[in-house]
Amino acid sequence: MKVNRQEYDGRIRRLQTQLQHSGLDGMLVAQNVDLYYLTGSMQTGYLLVPVEGEPRFLVRRSVARAVEESVWPVLPLGSLRELALQLGELFPGRSAASGLGGLTLAAEFDVLPVQQYQRLQQALPAVQWKDGSAMIRELRMLKSELELALIRQAAQLVDEAFEDMLGWLQPGIRELDVMARIETYMRQRGHIGVMRLRGFNQSVITGMIGAGSAAAAPTYFDGPAGGLGLGAFCPQSVSLRPIERDEPILIDIGCCVEGYVIDQTRTVVIGKLEPELEQAYEQSERIIRYTESLLKPGEICERLYAESVRLADEADLAGHFMGYGADQVRFLGHGIGLEIDEWPVLARGFRHELQPGMVLAIEPKFTFPGRGVVGIENSYAVTEHGFEKLSVTREGLIRL
Amino acid sequence: MKVNRQEYDGRIRRLQTQLQHSGLDGMLVAQNVDLYYLTGSMQTGYLLVPVEGEPRFLVRRSVARAVEESVWPVLPLGSLRELALQLGELFPGRSAASGLGGLTLAAEFDVLPVQQYQRLQQALPAVQWKDGSAMIRELRMLKSELELALIRQAAQLVDEAFEDMLGWLQPGIRELDVMARIETYMRQRGHIGVMRLRGFNQSVITGMIGAGSAAAAPTYFDGPAGGLGLGAFCPQSVSLRPIERDEPILIDIGCCVEGYVIDQTRTVVIGKLEPELEQAYEQSERIIRYTESLLKPGEICERLYAESVRLADEADLAGHFMGYGADQVRFLGHGIGLEIDEWPVLARGFRHELQPGMVLAIEPKFTFPGRGVVGIENSYAVTEHGFEKLSVTREGLIRL
Repeated sequence: MKVNRQEYDGRIRRLQTQLQHSGLDGMLVAQNVDLYYLTGSMQTGYLLVPVEGEPRFLVRRSVARAVEESVWPVLPLGSLRELALQLGELFPGRSAASGLGGLTLAAEFDVLPVQQYQRLQQALPAVQWKDGSAMIRELRMLKSELELALIRQAAQLVDEAFEDMLGWLQPGIRELDVMARIETYMRQRGHIGVMRLRGFNQSVITGMIGAGSAAAAPTYFDGPAGGLGLGAFCPQSVSLRPIERDEPILIDIGCCVEGYVIDQTRTVVIGKLEPELEQAYEQSERIIRYTESLLKPGEICERLYAESVRLADEADLAGHFMGYGADQVRFLGHGIGLEIDEWPVLARGFRHELQPGMVLAIEPKFTFPGRGVVGIENSYAVTEHGFEKLSVTREGLIRL
Repeated sequence: MKVNRQEYDGRIRRLQTQLQHSGLDGMLVAQNVDLYYLTGSMQTGYLLVPVEGEPRFLVRRSVARAVEESVWPVLPLGSLRELALQLGELFPGRSAASGLGGLTLAAEFDVLPVQQYQRLQQALPAVQWKDGSAMIRELRMLKSELELALIRQAAQLVDEAFEDMLGWLQPGIRELDVMARIETYMRQRGHIGVMRLRGFNQSVITGMIGAGSAAAAPTYFDGPAGGLGLGAFCPQSVSLRPIERDEPILIDIGCCVEGYVIDQTRTVVIGKLEPELEQAYEQSERIIRYTESLLKPGEICERLYAESVRLADEADLAGHFMGYGADQVRFLGHGIGLEIDEWPVLARGFRHELQPGMVLAIEPKFTFPGRGVVGIENSYAVTEHGFEKLSVTREGLIRL
């Protein structure tokens, strides 16, 4: 990764611009994925990014590994006391002895545990802390060419796994077994085994495969179709239910290769789908086509969601859109990259303009309790004049 | 799960006793695994446990699913404002309008993100907050018969997967492919796909398989042998390196079935191990045997670690024990249960007495940079008069 020094220079410069606009002296980065994004290494420690000048990566463990991986200077961090000394060196105007009074630093409040934050406050009593979550999420929201290339690679792998599955999928196979086989296929080709995710209490292994009623089970998972799962101890994704003929099979899968995730959904049926579900599937395609027509720089994220709700409503499917009843989620799509729940989100309140480099998984789906979920999901990159569809898998209702 | 109402009554009663001893009015539980432990459900929301009386589970999503799963009354939680009303009802002496002044509540500071904590502080401005992490970790540290039965089940599955692997393991197979095949075996038999873990920035899929130098690579992972991994984007666990003859193959695997994890390690060699590594392996067995002799109620956790360091030192292996050099970890074992990093920890500073119901993974290992890692790990339950070995897999250096 050290060859891409320019890439990391650019990321740090963009963060420094944001720090400057917000009147902050710097940022203390602690989360592993953010560290990887900014340094090339996810060893445990803190990256100190001053508003001007070179960052320092203070590493608890493994220092040896961080030295190999990081583009920025690595210093061993024995105790939090050393943080004050390091900050004193980065900000020569302030003395470490005075507790670095007047220094205002951002931190990732969206993921940093309270306990760790309180330890930082104790070690640096005079530092003012601000929430830097939005800053880092906005930074990571715009992908470089290098990042897009890795996401394309993931899209290729998930497509191969999907096509492989179409060759052996049969009635009677349990959702869990379908998933296990897909996971092996992707794992042997570099899938790290999970799709990283930022949200508290959320997790995704390889997505979800849900047929008929199991797909439509309500879940805590922050997505339109979480799946029945294996039990209350794992109440999402695949279940032990065998897949049957003539029911919708939702294949919402992804993988993480070289750190980057992809996310896509296809609807498959072995046999024939009941007309109401088939019509709903067709409406999901209409929504994704219309969303594509809006997918260009300058459009506002929340408008894409509002338009999708309007189209669902026009088809008399508003109550089934993105989940059912009280368990509906209020978004149409989400950013992807190193994590599966990146920014922007196509949801009310997200007033970001689309910009070239944003990567979005767009997933119009309709839930019918007791009957199943139908829909489609593609991942896209926003380009100068429109979009590039990153998902390469065949579309349409897939009949076996 | 609702049939085990008694089990959950007992858990809540024990928590309430702790709350009382600490002079707290109650606890607000937010983390999914803690919620599952206390309610039988891991839907998203807050469990309010008053120091006296019945808890209430305030659920954001999915309410329908929580009603099915939870042993305690479920109430939908639309906004955080409703929390104040619910607290007012649970503590009739305090008025919600007055901001519930004087109320002191515990929360899980070790996992709760700062952002979510600040929202709670804003919604309940007069509430005093205390760190309840240690309380809930001590609560979960003592397993019931029901929990032990589930851990035994996981131990059985990991043993079957290991024995299956011994039938096909050969030189030339990449670590990743060994792991993918073991994962499929366990996944099809109910492994949820990851082993849950509490620590910030840490993750475990199915453990690690590392041969020769790859096993000995230093990592950020908080264990004695993290593994080389797939790259800086996934710098732990299996690598793409093919397994060779005459090198130690560390098989440190586990699974999560019915919510409970197991953790065990065996050392395998195809051919012959160099004498120094073989002697180190034998020392790891001596350490685990000696640790077993101390494994009974009343012994102090940190003493078990100190004794293991002494034994490593006696064999002139102190510098290789539990990692190498600067990358050594300072513990001998850790609690397991719903998560892989539970309490107690066999480490300096852990002055807990061993008690019946504690479950520990004990893992003496020796790291030789460039050559490999050897060692053994078993999981144990502490009993009235000693211990029960939960791991059922054959021991000794396994030669193929």
